[in-house]
Amino acid sequence: MTAPRNASNPQHSLILALDYGGTKHTVGVLAVGARDWLAHERVSSPPGADARYDQVTVIKLAHDLLARTQGQLVAVGVSFGGPVDSAKGVVRLSHHVPGWENTPLRDQLQAEFGVPATVDNDANVAALGEWRFGAGQGCASLLYVTVSTGIGGGWVLNGKVYSGADGMAGEIGHIVVRPGGAECVCGKHGCLEVEACGRAIARKMRERLASAGRHRDTAEPIMGESVARAAQQGDPLAQEVMDEVARNLGTGLGGAINLMNPERIVLGGGVTKSGERWWRILRETARYHALPQMRVDIQPAALGDDAPLWGAVALAEPLL
Amino acid sequence: MTAPRNASNPQHSLILALDYGGTKHTVGVLAVGARDWLAHERVSSPPGADARYDQVTVIKLAHDLLARTQGQLVAVGVSFGGPVDSAKGVVRLSHHVPGWENTPLRDQLQAEFGVPATVDNDANVAALGEWRFGAGQGCASLLYVTVSTGIGGGWVLNGKVYSGADGMAGEIGHIVVRPGGAECVCGKHGCLEVEACGRAIARKMRERLASAGRHRDTAEPIMGESVARAAQQGDPLAQEVMDEVARNLGTGLGGAINLMNPERIVLGGGVTKSGERWWRILRETARYHALPQMRVDIQPAALGDDAPLWGAVALAEPLL
Repeated sequence: MTAPRNASNPQHSLILALDYGGTKHTVGVLAVGARDWLAHERVSSPPGADARYDQVTVIKLAHDLLARTQGQLVAVGVSFGGPVDSAKGVVRLSHHVPGWENTPLRDQLQAEFGVPATVDNDANVAALGEWRFGAGQGCASLLYVTVSTGIGGGWVLNGKVYSGADGMAGEIGHIVVRPGGAECVCGKHGCLEVEACGRAIARKMRERLASAGRHRDTAEPIMGESVARAAQQGDPLAQEVMDEVARNLGTGLGGAINLMNPERIVLGGGVTKSGERWWRILRETARYHALPQMRVDIQPAALGDDAPLWGAVALAEPLL
Repeated sequence: MTAPRNASNPQHSLILALDYGGTKHTVGVLAVGARDWLAHERVSSPPGADARYDQVTVIKLAHDLLARTQGQLVAVGVSFGGPVDSAKGVVRLSHHVPGWENTPLRDQLQAEFGVPATVDNDANVAALGEWRFGAGQGCASLLYVTVSTGIGGGWVLNGKVYSGADGMAGEIGHIVVRPGGAECVCGKHGCLEVEACGRAIARKMRERLASAGRHRDTAEPIMGESVARAAQQGDPLAQEVMDEVARNLGTGLGGAINLMNPERIVLGGGVTKSGERWWRILRETARYHALPQMRVDIQPAALGDDAPLWGAVALAEPLL
């Protein structure tokens, strides 16, 4: 991230990058070819915000940032937190914010800013971001998986987002890794998501504490993050839980490797901060599951929460 | 398969297609752009044949067929039954025939026939064949799975074989669908292959007969094919077995759909002749496992045993 930054040059061609999240939105402005933001700001949505509210907020923030930045806007790239028909630039819906159903977001933004725009869903865009600017650079085939409250993923094959026939590829969170396991939001039992995500960690810890007859020491609710921290501090029950979710994730990744033999897998999201032991167990499990002729290269993401925003930049680049 | 066949035209440009199998090899000669073989012959290897024996046999047969065919050979396409480094045209090994380790098959054939050659492994090549000439025509993303003695697969994405970082993509047979299930040749337990292939059918039938205390009526060994036939004739134990393997296959395919959202899945191999009930159960199970936004389009292969040979033609076409 050390390319020159010439914010004072009025001849700059600018890319506007937008990341519509469930509760937070981020807007960034970048000079074409640069690796530093000329402007970058995150806003939260209040509870109860709908699509119209979020859209007004994001567009106003974008205009504010562009007004503070010298240069000529040439393209808009967009990451959206929900299913998108990327070929048409239409948001199908948001699972978190009402009112997004069938919104022609690309056309709205093109009309608003007068330049070409392109839209895809956040997992695909984050994958593209890590491939273009982060931990997946140079990989001919990359699976990006975010392990957070839930588990999602995206593919970059031969330098392009691969989103499948219905724009839904990468849903590794809904591969069953423990038949008969916990019930998932999708209605099945034992999906990777419900057996390895942050919520799964908290649930499994509560179950273990209950069956061990242990009372909780504090009124603090049990969260995935606190369990991961307790495991790193040596709490044996917490370690059991973290080992189990690491094995479940490794099982899912091993299956993905057998099916697609990707050059690399990049993992992002809060759960990936769970320490060396979690990483070791998931890599060992993936190695066990993958056929021996296939590489198992699983790396932490490099771009953190900004992966979708950097991906939005990469998405916009072909428009130039 | 109705394009004109002008075997008498000496100006024909010819493609030579070779399919090296474990015990059988097939050679075909086709005029460029045609859909009928000008010559087509299958030979068996005797037990104990090695790579050298098979190579001499196949090359002799190819020269014989070419001598009987008028026209000018312009390219050779090859399907090989084992792992191949397709970029280098080098066979890594055969699991069935000794002596193939690190054979530069492409270079050997180019030297032998004096035209460009291209080599890939049989599952990839069969996938390409079904995509170009069979049940996967027009699909931007196709998963081909052969359900036979074992279970293998291959991908065609955007009109090209996708073979992954180590040339091994498509190994859906080694995704675990029943943790703690039967031991697989790969050393794991409960892989799709060992829970759904032809051998699995025979094994599960033997186990059920044994635990039901039933003696077998004949000295005929129990084979997957006979179990499938008994199921179609209403034998309840055989139906149980076929239903179970269909569910296991549907579980694996549903996982592949979640991960890759392919436009279509094409199934080949002997087990796919198991009748409507088997097809219905596997489709229903795949539909149950796939997220509702994703299509579940699972079709029988169209090219039968010749899928790799037709794929070899498709592999050779870009060489023209």
